[in-house]
Amino acid sequence: MQKPSIPKGTRDFLPHEMERRNYIFETIKSVFHSFGFRQIETPAMENLSTLTGKYGDEGDKLLFRILNSGDCLAKFTDEELLAKNSASFAAKACDRGLRYDLTVPFARFVVQHRNEITLPFRRYQIQPVWRADRPQKGRYREFFQCDADMIGSDSLLNEVELTQIIDTVFTKLGFPVRILLNNRKILTGIAEYIGHADKIIDITVAMDKTDKIGLDKVVEELKEREISDAAIEKLMPILRLSGGNREKIAVLREVLAESSTAIRGLDEVEFILDKLALTPLKNELELNLTLARGLDYYTGAIFEVKAVGVEMGSITGGGRYDNLTGVFGLDNISGVGISFGADRIYDVLNMLDLYPKESARGTQLLFINFGEKEVDAVLPVLNMLRMQGVRTELYPDAAKMKKQMSYADDLNIPFVAFVGTKELENGVVNIKDMKSGEQKDYPMDELVKLFL
Amino acid sequence: MQKPSIPKGTRDFLPHEMERRNYIFETIKSVFHSFGFRQIETPAMENLSTLTGKYGDEGDKLLFRILNSGDCLAKFTDEELLAKNSASFAAKACDRGLRYDLTVPFARFVVQHRNEITLPFRRYQIQPVWRADRPQKGRYREFFQCDADMIGSDSLLNEVELTQIIDTVFTKLGFPVRILLNNRKILTGIAEYIGHADKIIDITVAMDKTDKIGLDKVVEELKEREISDAAIEKLMPILRLSGGNREKIAVLREVLAESSTAIRGLDEVEFILDKLALTPLKNELELNLTLARGLDYYTGAIFEVKAVGVEMGSITGGGRYDNLTGVFGLDNISGVGISFGADRIYDVLNMLDLYPKESARGTQLLFINFGEKEVDAVLPVLNMLRMQGVRTELYPDAAKMKKQMSYADDLNIPFVAFVGTKELENGVVNIKDMKSGEQKDYPMDELVKLFL
Repeated sequence: MQKPSIPKGTRDFLPHEMERRNYIFETIKSVFHSFGFRQIETPAMENLSTLTGKYGDEGDKLLFRILNSGDCLAKFTDEELLAKNSASFAAKACDRGLRYDLTVPFARFVVQHRNEITLPFRRYQIQPVWRADRPQKGRYREFFQCDADMIGSDSLLNEVELTQIIDTVFTKLGFPVRILLNNRKILTGIAEYIGHADKIIDITVAMDKTDKIGLDKVVEELKEREISDAAIEKLMPILRLSGGNREKIAVLREVLAESSTAIRGLDEVEFILDKLALTPLKNELELNLTLARGLDYYTGAIFEVKAVGVEMGSITGGGRYDNLTGVFGLDNISGVGISFGADRIYDVLNMLDLYPKESARGTQLLFINFGEKEVDAVLPVLNMLRMQGVRTELYPDAAKMKKQMSYADDLNIPFVAFVGTKELENGVVNIKDMKSGEQKDYPMDELVKLFL
Repeated sequence: MQKPSIPKGTRDFLPHEMERRNYIFETIKSVFHSFGFRQIETPAMENLSTLTGKYGDEGDKLLFRILNSGDCLAKFTDEELLAKNSASFAAKACDRGLRYDLTVPFARFVVQHRNEITLPFRRYQIQPVWRADRPQKGRYREFFQCDADMIGSDSLLNEVELTQIIDTVFTKLGFPVRILLNNRKILTGIAEYIGHADKIIDITVAMDKTDKIGLDKVVEELKEREISDAAIEKLMPILRLSGGNREKIAVLREVLAESSTAIRGLDEVEFILDKLALTPLKNELELNLTLARGLDYYTGAIFEVKAVGVEMGSITGGGRYDNLTGVFGLDNISGVGISFGADRIYDVLNMLDLYPKESARGTQLLFINFGEKEVDAVLPVLNMLRMQGVRTELYPDAAKMKKQMSYADDLNIPFVAFVGTKELENGVVNIKDMKSGEQKDYPMDELVKLFL
């Protein structure tokens, strides 16, 4: 007999895990709603023509492809098959693949439904994505993304609001984060200024190491990467950058005064800081030039969020992109978005044990089953409680008391109701508080009050 | 430039569609919760060894298979490839497939996690499933199932509660349904009694036609299907069956008195009716012997639900199965479950236009953007409203008034706020009720009350 299992890198979620995940999703959703975001969903399968070429060669390899139904080999010649070229075979044998992220399907969605949506469009989307990646701790082949994007508006107020959303979500979830902010235009300005426009990644990687390995070693590394002494000299004030956000901006404005691109980036950062100062954040916001995520597509602000005091990579990220939908033929749609990494946030909350103690969805009251006569009396009570929104169960079998009580224990049901011969005679329900152990009789019509 | 599209038989859901779907899912979930059901989720991909052979040959053909990653052709000999046998090719080139329903993954889940769950186990699961079926009106390749099952208990109280769940869900959704109930044991008893145990399907199909084509034609059909005259003679009282549930049961008890199987089935039906009589249903419950869904696996009660006055197939169905997990090596787990057809329920609600008029998630208040100075005054108000749970937006750009107002119209935002020079001076917010057209000034600190 086969021992059942699931594919590597995928997960089942048990009820107590679903409660925790739902808590995270509900928290994020409630914040999205308060900022006017509206939900969409897209199919798990997309045409491969939508997906391929959007994530680089590496990404293309990580797509899960669906074998065409029916006689999928019929259209191949003998020569094609004998060539045993798996990549070109897959390209011809598969028309569809599983969604790799939520951004490309969203871009496709916007173009396909452009006559049905009103710009600016604030959409959120919470769905699983699939990647044929090597599974490892914290990395799954099926995982959930929670994306919020506002498209069709260049206004920096959008960046301001996304920062507030991040701040509000983590405040509600109950752990402190550092919100890192950068701007692609500043990075571009730096690279231009030192005359190495092509080395922007090397420079950010080096800057990121200053704290860890010291300035001297960073200079060595830059030399190894063929950055000229003159350029390194010009870079020094930026490598030495420290202090608060405003101090950093002041230094950068001086050093990068010649680069109009950098100055525009600094103006953008300062605008965001100014607006946020009107309603101070609960979490720290840090201008961090080493933040270099998504340089392939981000054109303005870049966001990243780290949990304070927890060893964990980025738990949220995003940025401004100026041409989301160009690849599908619709130009000039600018947007800015963030993506909450639900699985990592779940791991952080598990480590810190920050879930609400009260289950919002679990059974509140279990009725013990004493047999048919007692059940007949309980059924109308059950019905009345449920109609009023109390989450309640009757144990389905007249099993031994011990078994029924251990069921209540296993499920963390806080109250147990006994309706036996004596209670039937007196027209009451005896309720046991499972935490304190106290037991008390209640008239039927006062029962509801216990749970509302 | 490619015109973007999605695979045949799949759908995007726009925000107004998501609102409607969420309303259905939330309604069903709230009822599940009130009956103590707990949510699980399983991965979209299952090992094909879990899926194949569970849905018959037809089902196997409808599975979406994922092509193995990497060099998927490497393990094939030239001969295997040149045979061009697509089925045996797929069996070797694909280890995983997309979930075809929620029942088989649930059975796999129960066996895999048997040491982590407590029996009796009440689980619900709301996830998409995928079938490579020919798409047509109301039939999709990706669609949602909402399943609730109770396993590990033989008690007929479970059937009673599932009937109550069906009744409560459709009462909440606001349209009347007919709940059809049958019992596999009665059908088996009938087939045995007339000496045609193998013809049970032919018999139910014929019975189903009595109303439409008349008794004479039904008898003709039964003869064509090689059912003997003697058997048909014995079947006549059952073909003529009419009246209320109790009358039908009385007739059947007489006719089928010799079949202990049938009598057990009738006892079960009567038990369910008796218990339900203690808390009367809002919808009609009908004993219907023509109901023959899932005869391959159902062993007791069989359920089906039809919307009254709407042309639509079954919108919910289910039944009792005695060996859910046997195929995965765990015997003697009995269960009973129902599945709500979310997509058909969605279609019915659309036809009847039964959605709540008030959006539970849409923006309640839009602030008009008059420029930077006014925005600076609005930002703290926005923040205060959002912190108190009001769903509110500021138009991100200082666009023309007409554009901003038509945005509010398009999104059905019920209130619009104006904070211009005059309002700034007076420290008020001018609110327009978009439905009545009325406009009124409110002090900042009285604003919240409008929305709570």
